[in-house]
Amino acid sequence: MAAEKICVKAQDRANFNNNVDYCVGTGRLGLALTEEYLKELAYVQEMIGFSCIRGHGLFSDDVSIYHEYEENGETKVEYNYTYIDRIFDAYLKLNIRPYLELGFMPGQLASGTQTIFYWKGNTTPPKEYKKWTDMVIALLAHLKVRYGEAEVITWPIEVWNEPNLPGFWYKADMEEYFKLFKETFLAIKAYDDRFQVGGPAICGVKDAEWIEAFLKFCRKEGIKPDTITRHHYTVEFPERIGHYDYSKLEDQEMRFANLQSTRDIVDSFEEFKGLPIFLSEFSTSYTPRGVIHDTNLNAAYLARQLSGLGDVNYGYSYWTFGDVFEEQGVPNSLFHGGFGMVAHGNIPKPTFWTFYFYKQLKLFGQDCVYRDDKAVIVKNEKGYAGILWNIDEEDVTRELAFELTEDGEYTLLTKTVDETTCNPLKVWHDLGEPAYPTAEETELIRSAAQPLTGSSIAKSEDKTAKVSIVTRRNGVVYFSLTKRKATPDRGYDYEKVLSFH
Amino acid sequence: MAAEKICVKAQDRANFNNNVDYCVGTGRLGLALTEEYLKELAYVQEMIGFSCIRGHGLFSDDVSIYHEYEENGETKVEYNYTYIDRIFDAYLKLNIRPYLELGFMPGQLASGTQTIFYWKGNTTPPKEYKKWTDMVIALLAHLKVRYGEAEVITWPIEVWNEPNLPGFWYKADMEEYFKLFKETFLAIKAYDDRFQVGGPAICGVKDAEWIEAFLKFCRKEGIKPDTITRHHYTVEFPERIGHYDYSKLEDQEMRFANLQSTRDIVDSFEEFKGLPIFLSEFSTSYTPRGVIHDTNLNAAYLARQLSGLGDVNYGYSYWTFGDVFEEQGVPNSLFHGGFGMVAHGNIPKPTFWTFYFYKQLKLFGQDCVYRDDKAVIVKNEKGYAGILWNIDEEDVTRELAFELTEDGEYTLLTKTVDETTCNPLKVWHDLGEPAYPTAEETELIRSAAQPLTGSSIAKSEDKTAKVSIVTRRNGVVYFSLTKRKATPDRGYDYEKVLSFH
Amino acid sequence: MAAEKICVKAQDRANFNNNVDYCVGTGRLGLALTEEYLKELAYVQEMIGFSCIRGHGLFSDDVSIYHEYEENGETKVEYNYTYIDRIFDAYLKLNIRPYLELGFMPGQLASGTQTIFYWKGNTTPPKEYKKWTDMVIALLAHLKVRYGEAEVITWPIEVWNEPNLPGFWYKADMEEYFKLFKETFLAIKAYDDRFQVGGPAICGVKDAEWIEAFLKFCRKEGIKPDTITRHHYTVEFPERIGHYDYSKLEDQEMRFANLQSTRDIVDSFEEFKGLPIFLSEFSTSYTPRGVIHDTNLNAAYLARQLSGLGDVNYGYSYWTFGDVFEEQGVPNSLFHGGFGMVAHGNIPKPTFWTFYFYKQLKLFGQDCVYRDDKAVIVKNEKGYAGILWNIDEEDVTRELAFELTEDGEYTLLTKTVDETTCNPLKVWHDLGEPAYPTAEETELIRSAAQPLTGSSIAKSEDKTAKVSIVTRRNGVVYFSLTKRKATPDRGYDYEKVLSFH
Amino acid sequence: MAAEKICVKAQDRANFNNNVDYCVGTGRLGLALTEEYLKELAYVQEMIGFSCIRGHGLFSDDVSIYHEYEENGETKVEYNYTYIDRIFDAYLKLNIRPYLELGFMPGQLASGTQTIFYWKGNTTPPKEYKKWTDMVIALLAHLKVRYGEAEVITWPIEVWNEPNLPGFWYKADMEEYFKLFKETFLAIKAYDDRFQVGGPAICGVKDAEWIEAFLKFCRKEGIKPDTITRHHYTVEFPERIGHYDYSKLEDQEMRFANLQSTRDIVDSFEEFKGLPIFLSEFSTSYTPRGVIHDTNLNAAYLARQLSGLGDVNYGYSYWTFGDVFEEQGVPNSLFHGGFGMVAHGNIPKPTFWTFYFYKQLKLFGQDCVYRDDKAVIVKNEKGYAGILWNIDEEDVTRELAFELTEDGEYTLLTKTVDETTCNPLKVWHDLGEPAYPTAEETELIRSAAQPLTGSSIAKSEDKTAKVSIVTRRNGVVYFSLTKRKATPDRGYDYEKVLSFH
Repeated sequence: MAAEKICVKAQDRANFNNNVDYCVGTGRLGLALTEEYLKELAYVQEMIGFSCIRGHGLFSDDVSIYHEYEENGETKVEYNYTYIDRIFDAYLKLNIRPYLELGFMPGQLASGTQTIFYWKGNTTPPKEYKKWTDMVIALLAHLKVRYGEAEVITWPIEVWNEPNLPGFWYKADMEEYFKLFKETFLAIKAYDDRFQVGGPAICGVKDAEWIEAFLKFCRKEGIKPDTITRHHYTVEFPERIGHYDYSKLEDQEMRFANLQSTRDIVDSFEEFKGLPIFLSEFSTSYTPRGVIHDTNLNAAYLARQLSGLGDVNYGYSYWTFGDVFEEQGVPNSLFHGGFGMVAHGNIPKPTFWTFYFYKQLKLFGQDCVYRDDKAVIVKNEKGYAGILWNIDEEDVTRELAFELTEDGEYTLLTKTVDETTCNPLKVWHDLGEPAYPTAEETELIRSAAQPLTGSSIAKSEDKTAKVSIVTRRNGVVYFSLTKRKATPDRGYDYEKVLSFH
Repeated sequence: MAAEKICVKAQDRANFNNNVDYCVGTGRLGLALTEEYLKELAYVQEMIGFSCIRGHGLFSDDVSIYHEYEENGETKVEYNYTYIDRIFDAYLKLNIRPYLELGFMPGQLASGTQTIFYWKGNTTPPKEYKKWTDMVIALLAHLKVRYGEAEVITWPIEVWNEPNLPGFWYKADMEEYFKLFKETFLAIKAYDDRFQVGGPAICGVKDAEWIEAFLKFCRKEGIKPDTITRHHYTVEFPERIGHYDYSKLEDQEMRFANLQSTRDIVDSFEEFKGLPIFLSEFSTSYTPRGVIHDTNLNAAYLARQLSGLGDVNYGYSYWTFGDVFEEQGVPNSLFHGGFGMVAHGNIPKPTFWTFYFYKQLKLFGQDCVYRDDKAVIVKNEKGYAGILWNIDEEDVTRELAFELTEDGEYTLLTKTVDETTCNPLKVWHDLGEPAYPTAEETELIRSAAQPLTGSSIAKSEDKTAKVSIVTRRNGVVYFSLTKRKATPDRGYDYEKVLSFH
Repeated sequence: MAAEKICVKAQDRANFNNNVDYCVGTGRLGLALTEEYLKELAYVQEMIGFSCIRGHGLFSDDVSIYHEYEENGETKVEYNYTYIDRIFDAYLKLNIRPYLELGFMPGQLASGTQTIFYWKGNTTPPKEYKKWTDMVIALLAHLKVRYGEAEVITWPIEVWNEPNLPGFWYKADMEEYFKLFKETFLAIKAYDDRFQVGGPAICGVKDAEWIEAFLKFCRKEGIKPDTITRHHYTVEFPERIGHYDYSKLEDQEMRFANLQSTRDIVDSFEEFKGLPIFLSEFSTSYTPRGVIHDTNLNAAYLARQLSGLGDVNYGYSYWTFGDVFEEQGVPNSLFHGGFGMVAHGNIPKPTFWTFYFYKQLKLFGQDCVYRDDKAVIVKNEKGYAGILWNIDEEDVTRELAFELTEDGEYTLLTKTVDETTCNPLKVWHDLGEPAYPTAEETELIRSAAQPLTGSSIAKSEDKTAKVSIVTRRNGVVYFSLTKRKATPDRGYDYEKVLSFH
Repeated sequence: MAAEKICVKAQDRANFNNNVDYCVGTGRLGLALTEEYLKELAYVQEMIGFSCIRGHGLFSDDVSIYHEYEENGETKVEYNYTYIDRIFDAYLKLNIRPYLELGFMPGQLASGTQTIFYWKGNTTPPKEYKKWTDMVIALLAHLKVRYGEAEVITWPIEVWNEPNLPGFWYKADMEEYFKLFKETFLAIKAYDDRFQVGGPAICGVKDAEWIEAFLKFCRKEGIKPDTITRHHYTVEFPERIGHYDYSKLEDQEMRFANLQSTRDIVDSFEEFKGLPIFLSEFSTSYTPRGVIHDTNLNAAYLARQLSGLGDVNYGYSYWTFGDVFEEQGVPNSLFHGGFGMVAHGNIPKPTFWTFYFYKQLKLFGQDCVYRDDKAVIVKNEKGYAGILWNIDEEDVTRELAFELTEDGEYTLLTKTVDETTCNPLKVWHDLGEPAYPTAEETELIRSAAQPLTGSSIAKSEDKTAKVSIVTRRNGVVYFSLTKRKATPDRGYDYEKVLSFH
C-alpha cells in the first residue's frame, strides 16, 4: 500500500471557508407535501442540518397559488396558500427555511404554453408583469403574517432558474429575463428593501457572457443585486442508455478555475466588487438519472469539491437532499442515479457522509491548519479533526504527525466510508438490484450504508503525536485527535479485562 | 491466516434445537417501572423478540403487593396491584410475557429478617404458608381478570430462586424449600391445573444432590412438576478488584457434560423421564460486575453455548437482557461488567448480536445440515444460513462449499461482529472510559457497536457454490447464501456504472 | 323540551346490519403519497378502523404505472410500481387494504384526450384492450409477489367509476363500458378466479336502466359479477356561489326506496338473485365544496342513513375519510365543504363521530333489540348500547326503559355530539373563518370537536332500569348501560369526598 | 341562577403577580427514573410548562450518590452519579430544571437511623459536616461539567425540608438546622457565590418563631440567604378513614393573612427587607391521600389561591405535578387523593386545568385590569382574557362589560371546567371506582377530563362589548375576548350554510 506523510504544526494556517450547511437543493416544492420527502428531509436535518432549502416550482400549478376567475364579466385574481403554508410549516418544523426561487409561471399567468419536465412547469414569461409582481408581493405579505416579519425577511430570494437554457426560459431570451429580474427586484425592494434578491441563476452555457451582460444591465439600470447566483456541475455530456445517464467526471482544477472566472468578472465591476456569489445548485452529474450519484466515487470527488467551493463563493447548495424527484418522471428503481444524498427508505448514500463529515468538521472548528487536494484539517482547543479522501487511486496510508501543546494520551477516532465499509449500491447489486425493495431488504441495505467507526490511543512524544490512517480507493475518512482524559473506575483495568479469561 | 474447510450437502442432517428466543432474564421486576429499563427491553424485543421474561422480586416490597393492617384488633390482609399491573401491561405491550418466578418474601409475610442484595429482597420462608398460597392464588386470579384466562394460563411458573444458596433461602434449608414447593404447587394446581409449575431453580452448588433429592421428594409426595429448572454459569470463582470481578472461563465441553448429568438424573426416574429441563438462568460470569460480559470474547463463547444448549434442555434464559440491575448496587460506569446484552443508552454489546444472529437463524430455518464446535448451518428452500465463531484463536478463513439444486448466481450476505468491526468496549476505553458518557459519546459508542454488513455474488458450478468467510479472533459471523434473481432496470449496468467516469 | 319514550325488552329483535367499517372512500390514490393525507388516515384508522379503502386514479399518470417507449423502432411497454408500492405499503401499515377501482386511463394507453377534474384523469377507453388487461394482470401479479397471494386475493376489484356520466366515461357509452367490464372480468378470472370483480359503479343518472342493461349483458355473456356496485348521494342539485355548493337534503325514506329498487332489479334476475350490492360511494352532497358536509346536521342525517344502509346492501363506503382531495382544485380554506370525516389538521367533523359511534356499537354487539328512524339499540351479555339522533328538530328528551336480568346499579355512559358540545365549524366561524389557521387556532378548533362524555348510575327496579337522554337539534348521542360493579377501596367514600370540606 | 356584574375599563389597574409556571413539586427524585413519572411530567410540560422542579431525596440511598468503602484499613468516599445524571438529563430534555433541595441524608453519612416515609429517607444530621459539604460541592462541580456552568448556576438551592417537623429533621432541632444551613451556605458560596441558596423550608408549625429565629441567626452570622422559603397548605387536620384523609378547607383570607405575616417578619429585618419569599410547597391538603385533591372543588379553590399567591411571594410551587408518589406507600387506586395535577395514565384532574388556565393567562398578558375574590382579568393589545371561578356556591351568571378602543365584532372563547363538563372523578365513580382501570377505562375517563370549549361573537356598541359567562358550582372558566377579523372565502356564507338544507 502506498504511504504519504502530513505534518501539522499548531501555528499553520490554510485557507478554508466551510459553509457546507448553508443551503441544500430539493425536488419541486409540491413534492414537499409527500411523506417520503419529509422523512428523508427529517433524516438529513437530524444528521446534517442545513439552514436553507431551494427548489423549483413555487408558483407552479401543483402548488396552486395563482387563480383567475370571472365575476360580472371581469377577470379577477385570487390566491390560495393552502399548500404553500403546509410546505413552509413543514420546513420550519424541520429547522430549515425556504430559499425562495421565484418560478415557474402559473398556467393562467403565462404568456405561452412551453413547459419543462415530466411535471410540466411552465417556463414562459408572464402575460402581464404587474400581475406577476402583485403575486410575488402578496405572497411575501402573506408569509410575514404567518411566520413573522423578522423571520421572513431572512429568506433569500432568487429570480427564476437557468434562464440561459431555452427549456427553462422561453428561447433563453436574455433581454426578457433582465426585464423579469428588474421588475421583480424593484417591486420587492419597494415593498421591503430588507429582502435580499439575487440572480441570474445561470447554468453551464455561455456563463461568462450572461454574467457580464447581467451586471452591465444592472449597472445601467442602477440596480445592485444582493447576490450573484450560478450553478456548478462537474461532468461531461452524458451517454444515455435506457433510463440512465453515464458521464465522465471533469478535472477538478479546471472546474475550480471556472468558478474563479465568475468571481473575476464580478470583481471587475467597481459597483459589484466582492458581491457574494452563491452556487444555487451544484453536483457532479446534472441529470436525475446520473448513475455516478450513488457511488463511493461521487462521495470522494465531492470531498475535494467541498474543501474548495468556499474559496470564491459565499455558499453552495447541493442538488439535492433526497431522491424524491420527478423531473424525468418517477424513479424506476431504488438506485437510479437520483440527485439525492439519501435514497428512498432513508438509505444514506456515500455522498451523504461526505456532507455529514464536513458538518462535523465545521462544528469541531473553523481554524484550518492544513489543506491539500486530498485532505483538510482544522483544530480547536481540544485537538485536531480532518477529512481525508481518495479519488479513484490505489489504497494509501497517510502518516500524520500533529504538534501538540502537551504530551500524553490522545484519542484518535475515525469514521470511514469506502467501497468496503459503506457501499449500499454494491449490496443492492449483489441482492439482484431489486427495483422496489421490501422493508427487510431496505433495512439490510441501510445497515450497509453506515460509516465504520474506529478508535485508538496515540501517545505523544516531544509534543508530537503520530497516527496512520488508511484511505482506500474512493474512500472518505473523518478523524479527530483529542486529548484523552482517562477516568477508570475503581478496580477497572482494561488490559486485564482482555487478558484474564 | 489459517484456513479450514466445511462441505455441506443438502441431505446432511445435524442435531440442533434452536430455542434462543424462548426466555430472557431481567433485573428485579420493580425495575421494570423505569424508563431506561423499558427502552432497553423495547430495543431487545424489536431486534430479537423473546417470548418470556423472568426475574426476581415479584413479591418483594418495592412491588408492594402484600399488606397487612389492623382493624378492630384483627390483622387483615389486602393486596395492591398498582405496580405489578403497570409492569405486566408494559411487558405485554412489548410482546413479552412474564415467566412467573414466585419470590421473594414480602416483609410482613416473612418469618425472618434475612435479606439479599443492595435492594434487600427478604429470603426467608413465609411465617404462615396459608397466607403465602392465598397471595399467590389471589394474584393469579387478578391476572386472569385483567389479561384474560387464555393468556395467563400460558405464563410459566417457577417456585423461588436458588434455594440451594443460603443467601437466597435461609440456611439453604432443603426440607423447607420442598415444603414451599409442595404447598405452592398443590395450591396452584387446585386452583387451575392448566398452570405449568416448575422448580427447584438451583444453582451451581450441590446441583446433583439437590435435583435427586427434589425428584425423590416429588415421587414420595405424588407430585409431578411440569418443568425441572436449574441455572448454568460457566466461569470459575472470580477475583474481585475494586468494584469488579475477573473470572476465567470454564471448558465448554465440561460444562455441557454437567448439563447432560442433570438430564441423566431426571431421566433415571421413571415418573419424570423426559420432563422438560429449563435453564432459568445462564451466562458466563454470575456476577453483575463480571467484566467479561462486555467483551467480544463473551459473544464468541456464547455462540458455542447457544449451538448446544438445546441438546438436552427445553429452554435457556440469558441472564439478563439489559444493564438496569441493582443486585450489587447502582452501576458505577457505562461498562461495568453488567449482565445485559445491552448497555445503558441502548448500546448493544457484542453478545447482543450473538442472540440476534441465532434469532435470524431460527427465522431462516430449523433444518440443521451442519454443526461443529465452531459453526452451525441450516437450510431452507431458498438456500443456507449459518453462524461461525472464533473463540480466542488466531484469525481463520473458512472455505465453505454448498450443494445446491440448480446452478446460477447466489448472494452471500455476511454480518460480522469482532474486535475490529464491532467493539464498543474498546471505543469507550479509547475515549478514556467515561463513567457517565454524554449523549454525544453514547451515540459515538453506539455507532461502533453495529455488525459490518458485507455481500458478494457466488457463482455455482456443478451445483456447488464455494465461498470464503473470515472469522477473526473473538469474532462471530452470520451469513446466508441464497439464490440471486437479477432484475436490472432497463439500461442499468453495474459494471459500467463503476468503470465509466 | 319534548319527550319520547322507548321501552326495550331483552327478547326484542330488530333488523340491523351494521357494516359501518367495511370500506371508506379517498381522494385519488396519488394523494396517498402526501403526509397530511396519511396523518388523517392514521387518525381515522386509530379511532374507527376501516377494512378497505377505495379511490380513483390507480392508473392515472401521477401514479405513473404504465409507460411506452421506443426501442429499435418498436413500441414497448414497461411498468413502474415505485409509487403504487409506496401507497399500498402505507395502507397496509395502517391496517387498511385497497379496494381496487380499475381506472382511469394512462395517457399513453388512452384512445382520446378527454380528462376530468383539476387533476386531469383521462376518461376514455383504452386504445387497445389487450394492453389494458395486460397492465391489470401485471399489476395483480406484482402485488402478489410483494404482499403475498393470500393477502392480495382478498382485495375487491371494481371496474371503472360512474360510466353512466359522460365526464367519467367518454360519452357515457354503455356498450363500450360493457366491453371494458367483460374484457377485464374475463382476464382477471382467467388469471386467478379467486379475485372478486364487480361493477358497474354507476351514479345517480338512469340508474335502473343501467343496472338492468348491465345484468342482461352479463347474462347474455355468461358472466356472473361477484358484486353489483352503485353510488348513493342524498341531496338535490346544488346552488353554486363562489367556490361553494349549497344543496337541499332529500327525504330519507325516498332514498331508501331507491336503494330497494336496485335490490329488486338484481333479485329479479334468477342468475343474480341475492348478489351482494356494494354502495361504492355514499354521502349527502356529491361535491367536494358541499358546505353541508361540515355541519352537525350532516352527522345527524348520516346517523339515520347508517342505521338503514345495511338493509339491502352488503357494504357502503363513505366518500371520503379526509379532506385531502383535489377534484375541484386545492381547498381554499379549512372548512370548505370537503367530503372528509376529518378536516385538515386532524380536526374531526361531527360526522366523524357518527361513524365512530357506529363502530363502537358494532364492537359492543350486533344483536339489535330496537330500531326506529331516530334510534338504534343493541345488547350484549353486559347490557345495552345505542345511538340516538335528532335531525333538525327541537331538543327532545328520550325516556328509555331497559329490561334486565338482575337488579342492581347500572352505569350509563353517554357521548354527545351536537351544536353545543362539538361544533368546530361554529368556533372556526366565530374566529373569523381563518382560511389557513395557525397551529394554535387548529388546536383550539380541535378542542371544540370532541364529544362530551357523561355518566350516571341508574338503579334498576323490577328488573327494569330507566334513564333519560337528551338529544338536542342535530345531535347524535352514543350511550351504553352496563352492570356496575362497585369496588371502592378501603376507606374511600365518594359521597363523603364531595360533602366533606 | 344568580347574576353578577363586572365592568372593565381599559385604564383600570389591579395588583396581580402571575408566576404560576415558576416551579412545581415532585415525588422523590428517584421516582424520576420511572416511565409513568416521565410520561406525566412530559404531559404537564407540554401543556403547562414549568421552569423548575423541586422534590425530596436528592441524596437518599435510592439515588445512590454517596458511598464509603474501606481500602487499606482506611475509610474512603466515592460518588456515583449514574442515576442523578439520568434524572437530570430527563428533566432538561423536558425543559425543566432542578430546584435543588439538599436532602435527605445518605445512610452511610447519617448520624442516626431515623427515617421518614414508606421509602425510608434518613432525616438525621450528617455524622460529619465536612463530608456533607464535600458531597454537595462535588455534586455541583460534577453538574457543571455535565451541563455547563452557565446552566447550573441558575439552579436554585434550598437547604433541607421542613426541619421544624421532627419527622423530617431529628427532634426538629433548630440549632442543628441552623448549623446545617450555615455550613452548607458557606461552602457553596465559597465554591461559587453565584449559586442562590435559600431556607429554612418550614411548614405549618411554629412558622413565625422559626422564621424569626432563622433570620436572627443569619444576621448574627453575617449570612444573607438569597431566598426565604416556607410551605403553605390550606386544610385543617384531616380525618383518616382506611387509606384516606378527609379534611376541611380553611378560610382563604385567613391563609393569605398568614402569608402576609411571614412577609412582615422578613421585612422587619433591615438587612433582609424585600428578600424574595418562595413557597417551596403549596396545596390544599398536605397528605398524599387527601381526597379533596381529585375534586372540582380543589380546582376552584386553587383558582382563588393562584390569583393571590404572588402578592407577597416571589414564587410558589404546587405539590405535586403528578401522582407518582410513595410517601405513604404505593397508591392503591386510580383516584386516591394523590397530590398530582395529573392522575396515572395522564388523566388531567380539574386542578390541572386551573394551572393551565393561569399559564394561558400569563401568555396572554400580565397587565391586570380587574381582580376580586372570584375573578382575575388581564388585557393585551388584542383584547382581554380572564379566569372566573365559583367555590362551592350556586351556579352564577357573570355579566361582563369591556371597554374597547374600536367598535366591531369580538370573539369570545371560553374553556369551562366544572362538575358537569370535566369531572373524571365522577365518571370513575360511576364506573364502580376501578382501582386498576384497563386501558379502555383510562381512555374513557380521560375523555371526560377535558374542558368544554365554547365560542360566540359579541358586537360592541359605544366601544363596549357585553358578554355573559356562567360559572357553575366548583367551576373554573377561562375566557378571552379579542377582535374578530372576518375573512370569509368567496361564496362562503355561514348563515346560509346553516339554514339551507
